Amino acid sequence: MEDIVALCRRRGFVFQSSEIYGGINGFWDYGPLGVLLKKNLKDAWWNDIITCPDDGPDGKPLDMVGLDATIIMNPKVWVASGHVGGFSDPMVDCRECKSRFRADHMDEYPCPLKPSKKAGGFEKCSLTEAREFNLMFETYVGAIRNEDAKAYLRPETAQGIFANFDNVVNTSRVKVPFGIAQIGKAFRNEVTPRNFTFRSREFEQMEIEFFIRPDSAEEWYKFWRDTRYAWWKAIGLAGDNLTLREHDRDELAHYAKEGAGTSDIEYRFPFTAPGFGELEGVAHRTDYDLRQHAEHSGLGDKLKYFDQERNERYFPHVIEPSAGADRGTLAVLCEAYTPTPERKGSKVVMKFHPRLAPIKAAVFPLVNKEGMPEVAEKLYRQLRKKYSIEFDVKQSIGKRYARMDEAGTPYCFTVDGDTLTDNTVTVRDRDTASQDRIAIDKVEAFLAEKIGG
Amino acid sequence: MEDIVALCRRRGFVFQSSEIYGGINGFWDYGPLGVLLKKNLKDAWWNDIITCPDDGPDGKPLDMVGLDATIIMNPKVWVASGHVGGFSDPMVDCRECKSRFRADHMDEYPCPLKPSKKAGGFEKCSLTEAREFNLMFETYVGAIRNEDAKAYLRPETAQGIFANFDNVVNTSRVKVPFGIAQIGKAFRNEVTPRNFTFRSREFEQMEIEFFIRPDSAEEWYKFWRDTRYAWWKAIGLAGDNLTLREHDRDELAHYAKEGAGTSDIEYRFPFTAPGFGELEGVAHRTDYDLRQHAEHSGLGDKLKYFDQERNERYFPHVIEPSAGADRGTLAVLCEAYTPTPERKGSKVVMKFHPRLAPIKAAVFPLVNKEGMPEVAEKLYRQLRKKYSIEFDVKQSIGKRYARMDEAGTPYCFTVDGDTLTDNTVTVRDRDTASQDRIAIDKVEAFLAEKIGG
Repeated sequence: MEDIVALCRRRGFVFQSSEIYGGINGFWDYGPLGVLLKKNLKDAWWNDIITCPDDGPDGKPLDMVGLDATIIMNPKVWVASGHVGGFSDPMVDCRECKSRFRADHMDEYPCPLKPSKKAGGFEKCSLTEAREFNLMFETYVGAIRNEDAKAYLRPETAQGIFANFDNVVNTSRVKVPFGIAQIGKAFRNEVTPRNFTFRSREFEQMEIEFFIRPDSAEEWYKFWRDTRYAWWKAIGLAGDNLTLREHDRDELAHYAKEGAGTSDIEYRFPFTAPGFGELEGVAHRTDYDLRQHAEHSGLGDKLKYFDQERNERYFPHVIEPSAGADRGTLAVLCEAYTPTPERKGSKVVMKFHPRLAPIKAAVFPLVNKEGMPEVAEKLYRQLRKKYSIEFDVKQSIGKRYARMDEAGTPYCFTVDGDTLTDNTVTVRDRDTASQDRIAIDKVEAFLAEKIGG
Repeated sequence: MEDIVALCRRRGFVFQSSEIYGGINGFWDYGPLGVLLKKNLKDAWWNDIITCPDDGPDGKPLDMVGLDATIIMNPKVWVASGHVGGFSDPMVDCRECKSRFRADHMDEYPCPLKPSKKAGGFEKCSLTEAREFNLMFETYVGAIRNEDAKAYLRPETAQGIFANFDNVVNTSRVKVPFGIAQIGKAFRNEVTPRNFTFRSREFEQMEIEFFIRPDSAEEWYKFWRDTRYAWWKAIGLAGDNLTLREHDRDELAHYAKEGAGTSDIEYRFPFTAPGFGELEGVAHRTDYDLRQHAEHSGLGDKLKYFDQERNERYFPHVIEPSAGADRGTLAVLCEAYTPTPERKGSKVVMKFHPRLAPIKAAVFPLVNKEGMPEVAEKLYRQLRKKYSIEFDVKQSIGKRYARMDEAGTPYCFTVDGDTLTDNTVTVRDRDTASQDRIAIDKVEAFLAEKIGG
C-alpha cells in the first residue's frame, strides 16, 4: 500500500489536502491525473445509470432521473432521517489529558493526539465511560448563532433525494418503478480517519434511490445487487479482489430488518487483505425514509405516491445502491497497480480500463526536430477534440513511455523518421509494451475502436 | 423573473432546498432537468479548458491541468489568504430584538427576520454601530471543540489551487505559462441571499489560476478576458445581454491595484435590468497569493518556481478567470426563456444552445399502438448510447412537443404510420416548430451534425 500511496503522490493522483501547512487529517486532494481518473469513474456511472441505463427485469429500459441537492439542508431533514438522534460513535475521554477516543477502536489505534502523548502515552489515560459523539459536522447559517441557526453538512446524499421525492414525481414523468440518482460530496467527522482515501472526512457518493411497489422488493433488490456488481467488474475490477457479500440478518440497520436484504460489494484493498472493504452497499430500505419525512414534515399522506395503474396511494419501497466515488477510485488505483520488473524503463504500469484511464493516448515526436514535432502536434490537435491526450517532446522516448505507463495511458503514438516518408506512426501498447506501425490517418479510428467514443 | 422561477420549479430545473420543511434560505437544489443543464455547462467548460483548450497568444495549445481540492482545508490556508482577517461584511445589531442586518444593504432589503417583525418592523430597531461579520461558515474537525479544531468551508476554490501549486509543478510537466483549473462547491454565509440562485450560500465555481512570467501580465490578462468573453457567447449568451466591463482602478482589490487589470463578464438578468450582474471575473492577482502562502507556510522561497529557460527563481504572477456555475446556469435559463404566444401548444420555448440542452432529442410514437412504439423504442435505444434522449408515449403529440419545448429539447423524432412503410420519421425543430421527414437510419447522423459528439 505504501508503494501505491507513494505513486499517487509522485505522479499527481492524490495529495494530502493543505500539504504545505502540514495537511489536515482525513482530507485528500486529487491532482491532475487523479481528478481525471475520478471524473471518468463518475461520468461512467452517470452515463450507465442516467443516460443509458440497463434494462430492468421486465426487459424495458429503466426509468432514471438525476438530481443535485445541496450539502447544507434544513436541519429537520436530519432529525427525520435519524442522524441527529443516532448517527454517532461511542467515545471515551481521558480525565487527565482531555483527549477523546473512539471506544470501540481502542485496541486498534494508538492515541493520535499530542496532549495524551505528552501525558505519557495512551495507556496511562484515565478513561470515562463511553458517550455518544455525533459524526455530523455542524455549522451555523445566518448572522446569529443559536440552536435555531444550527445546520449540518450532509453525512449522505440519500436524504436529498428523499426530501425531493415529491418534487420529482410532480415535475417529471417518472412512474414507479423509477430511480433518482445523485453524485455529490458528503461529510463525516470520523474520529480516526485512516487508510488513505478509504475512510476520509470529506468524500463523494454516487447514490441511487430506486422507488418500487412494496410487493416487488425481492425482485428489484436482486436486480440492483447483481447489476451493480456486474458494473464494477465491467469497469475493470474483474479479478478475485471483488466480491459480493450478503449481510446476515442480524447485521442489518433497524429499518432494513424487514427488508428483502442488504449486500455489500467489496474490494480486497491491500490494507484490508486478506479481508475486504466496502465499495458499495445495496439495501432494501423499505419505506422507512419516506414515512419519516411524511411524519416530520407534517405532510403525512400527501407524500404518498399515487399509482394510477393500481388506483392506490402508498409509500413506495426503496432499493438503494450507494457507492463511494473515492473508494471506487482507490480500488481502481489498487487493481491497476502492476509492478513490471521485466521492463527496462517502467517500474510500474497502471493498467486502468481504457474507459477510466486519465489520459487516453500520448503523441510523441521521436526527436524534437526534423519536422517531427509539427506532424505530431497536428495529430495531437486532431485527437484531443475527442479525447484527453498528452503531447510531450522532452527526454528519451523510453522515459516518455515509462511516464505514460505510470499514468496508465493505454496507447502512445510516436512520429519518427519513417512517418515523414510513409505516413505511418508507431503505436505502443501499455499492457504489452509491443509496438506496431499504423497509418497516421487510421489513428483516430483505432482509438475509437479501442477506447470508445 | 417570477415566470422563469415558476418554470424552473414546474419543470424540475430548480427546487428550493428542503422544500417540504419550508426550505432553507439561500440554498437551491437542481431537479432532473436542472442537473443535466448544469452538468452540460460544467462539462463544456472542462472540455474547453482542460481537454481541448484554445491556443495561447503564441499560437501554441495552452498547457492546462485539472485539480479537485477539498472543501475543508487546513484553516491556516484562510489566514494566509486573508479570509480569516478580512472576508467580512459590516453588520448592525438591533438592541431590542437582537436581529442582525448588513449595514450597507439597510435601504435595499426589508428585515428578513421574524423577531424584528414581531417587534413592530425594521424601522423601530435600535441599531448598534456597524461591526464586521465574517462570511465563512465555521465548523469543528475532530472530537474536540476548541480554537485549534476550528475549520472553515472554503469561500472560494482558488486557494485549493494556490496551496497545491508546488505539488502540481513537481508532479506534472507544466511550465510557466500554464493553468490549473478546478470545478467545485464554495460556501458564503451571506446575510441576505437573494435573486434566486444568483446570490446563494452554497454555490459552485469554475476557476482557472493561470501562472505566468511577471512581465507578461498585460498580454495574458487581455487574452483570458477576451477568451472567456468569447466562450460565454459561444455557448449561447450571444445577444446584447452579455457585456464585458473593465473595472476602474479604484474598484480593485488591494492585491490587484498594481496589476494589469480586472474585468467582469456580466449578464443582464431580469432582476438586474437595466443593469448587469457578474458571471465571471477575470483578474490579474499578481503574485499576492503565492507570496502569502510562502510566508504563512514557512516555506518561503522554496515555493518559488524555477524557470529553466531563464535560469531564474520567482513567484509567478496569476491571471484568474473565475466563473460561477450557478450564475452561468441561471443566465443560460434566462437567455433561453422565450414566450411563444403564437404557438398553439407551447407557451414557452427554452432555446438552449444544443450543447447545453438537458435532453438532446425526444423519440415519440405518434400513437401507442400499431407497431409504432416498437419502432420508436428501437430508435430511442440507438440514440441514447450517445445522447440524453427522452422517450414518451403519453398524451397527444402536441402536448408532448409542448413539454419538450419547455424542456428545451432541440429535436423531436416522431414515428407515425408512414414510418412503417417508408422508414422515415418526422423531425420537429424546437425553435421554428417546423416539421420535415428524414430517413430513420439518417437520424443519428443528423443529430451528430446538429448537436455534435
